[in-house]
Amino acid sequence: MSGAGADVPAEHVEGSSDAVVDLLAALAYGELTAFMRLAEDAELAPTLPYTAALGRLAVAEFSHFELLRERLVTIGADPELAMQPFVAPVDAFHSRTAPSDWLEGLVKAYVGDGIATDFYREISAYVDPSTRELVHSVLEDTGHADFVVTAVRRAIDADPRVGGRLALWGRRLVGEALSQAQRVAADRDALATVLVGGTAEMPGADLVEIGRMFSRLTEAHTSRMGRLGLTA
Amino acid sequence: MSGAGADVPAEHVEGSSDAVVDLLAALAYGELTAFMRLAEDAELAPTLPYTAALGRLAVAEFSHFELLRERLVTIGADPELAMQPFVAPVDAFHSRTAPSDWLEGLVKAYVGDGIATDFYREISAYVDPSTRELVHSVLEDTGHADFVVTAVRRAIDADPRVGGRLALWGRRLVGEALSQAQRVAADRDALATVLVGGTAEMPGADLVEIGRMFSRLTEAHTSRMGRLGLTA
Repeated sequence: MSGAGADVPAEHVEGSSDAVVDLLAALAYGELTAFMRLAEDAELAPTLPYTAALGRLAVAEFSHFELLRERLVTIGADPELAMQPFVAPVDAFHSRTAPSDWLEGLVKAYVGDGIATDFYREISAYVDPSTRELVHSVLEDTGHADFVVTAVRRAIDADPRVGGRLALWGRRLVGEALSQAQRVAADRDALATVLVGGTAEMPGADLVEIGRMFSRLTEAHTSRMGRLGLTA
Repeated sequence: MSGAGADVPAEHVEGSSDAVVDLLAALAYGELTAFMRLAEDAELAPTLPYTAALGRLAVAEFSHFELLRERLVTIGADPELAMQPFVAPVDAFHSRTAPSDWLEGLVKAYVGDGIATDFYREISAYVDPSTRELVHSVLEDTGHADFVVTAVRRAIDADPRVGGRLALWGRRLVGEALSQAQRVAADRDALATVLVGGTAEMPGADLVEIGRMFSRLTEAHTSRMGRLGLTA
């Protein structure tokens, strides 16, 4: 439709916008489910201030969902249809990582929120300027999970065995997240293209860069677990 | 402490501020649990737009909780301690009215949100000016439950038996709410005083006015059920 894209082969423009739709929709559904799970986990809290703190984090995730949803509408996508392919993998992740107690819920909230934030930062280099702006406004709204550090460290001080159990739990969270991410990457060509290869509109990373990105994400996760007093 | 209250017997000032703390704390805990239950019920939604709509309603309840909580801090109360007496009755209400499906969740959201809104409006006459201002800002943030009307009416059109089942459910919700409200009124003298008798600072309603208030709440509930296509 637009004359500006005349030089770009049609399949590239299509590929690019499919990829952005996939990316925004995957993040949107991730935020929507994070909101529901965090609100549910808030009921496990031992005190009302902790319930409120987890509630605040849940509300922040919901506002990210709203931003992503509005962006999908703006670029002409149907948010419901766009999110559909990510329902099964994201729901599978949550059903395999339902916290059995309050501390597992906290670690999941902190690790999940942290990895999501790092991922937003990483992808901001590979998306078009207006998507990048959206990603930056999501990134500015952080810090809601900081209360977790004190709570988890206090629990480990009170009973050091808790540290071993939660470290295992952290590894399980990452393992399940990676296995669902692989499932998504295998099913969604367009999404994989954002990262590997890219398009004329949106230059992607090469495999070396992907490798670096994964090692940055892993390092950030390791230091996040360290802040909680856990070995990754 | 304040010279302005010198003419007012001490127990009256005390009674009055206890009552305001009780009122704000009861509403705060009600909003906090409404947030968690609505976010949980959002998972029962048949489509993602409905999940999002229920999520929006949940977030609105959380922001009311935050306003009430801040107000408690401003008037020198400890929100956690103040909410404690209302945990058991409010939790009992929710455990006795856990929706067994999406439509029951919708009716609970609509009826609960509606009764809460009416109650905020009723009490605004009996509280001090700055509490009244808070109540009005909560009242301005309404309409998030309007989507329920279409959804419930559509379900009844598709299967008229649904109407009978949901009408019974509506009666059960009100019955459980009244029985918990009676429990609270019996336990909390200060709170009962806001409505019956009142204080020099805050004139209460007499029994005739209380009767009128209950009939206004009941009438509003009946017409709300009518809007859903249900007999109250």
